[in-house]
Amino acid sequence: MSSIFTKIIKGEIPSYKIAEDERFYAFLDINPNAKGHTLVIPKKEVDKLFDLDAETYVGLMQFAHKVAKALEKTIDCNRVGMTVVGLEVPHAHVHLIPINRVSDINFTSKKLAMQQEDFVKLAKEISRNFES
Amino acid sequence: MSSIFTKIIKGEIPSYKIAEDERFYAFLDINPNAKGHTLVIPKKEVDKLFDLDAETYVGLMQFAHKVAKALEKTIDCNRVGMTVVGLEVPHAHVHLIPINRVSDINFTSKKLAMQQEDFVKLAKEISRNFES
Repeated sequence: MSSIFTKIIKGEIPSYKIAEDERFYAFLDINPNAKGHTLVIPKKEVDKLFDLDAETYVGLMQFAHKVAKALEKTIDCNRVGMTVVGLEVPHAHVHLIPINRVSDINFTSKKLAMQQEDFVKLAKEISRNFES
Repeated sequence: MSSIFTKIIKGEIPSYKIAEDERFYAFLDINPNAKGHTLVIPKKEVDKLFDLDAETYVGLMQFAHKVAKALEKTIDCNRVGMTVVGLEVPHAHVHLIPINRVSDINFTSKKLAMQQEDFVKLAKEISRNFES
């Protein structure tokens, strides 16, 4: 069975897309730790980050770097943090989170409440700042 | 002034070293979230991960991948998580943390208490499993 992320890539489940190329896809986390919290995934479905083949692993990190730069341009923050946990969805994913304090990156902290129109607007803004 | 990590690289401050090459250095975090919590740093002192030049950024991620594989071989865990926060030390550093639950990667969770001899033994074991 396809992972929820593969369904998002295929458009079977909607997402607030930030950027996409042949191998990677970035979209807003709908349960964000902080404003701009984005997920970056390889289109190839592999559970664990460190089990990705070398080329996909490096490509994912390079794609994440470009998304991080777009986030920095869009969101007022101290910096963009990066986390890979992966215990819930068996499809490797990089969290990029604009942070101002360490609790912004904690997954057990209270989540940010955002309306659908806020997600749409934010995804457009970040996407506009993405340089492929 | 040199960062605390530059002092560690130079040997001015002792560390439980895992691996090192010309450009990167990996050592145990002395205030670990979980057993095997390791820091991977570029020898070049740059505050923010996403401000590293492209070559150093990719090299750091490749070096971290090799350290993660050594951690997987050494520590009984579900997987190795990765986090970059960076609000405390202005020298980019990647946290690699063997995790079994999401709280293992949280920086506000209770830290693991370890004795000096445990750190020495653990660093040797991980280092033995590191393939350069």
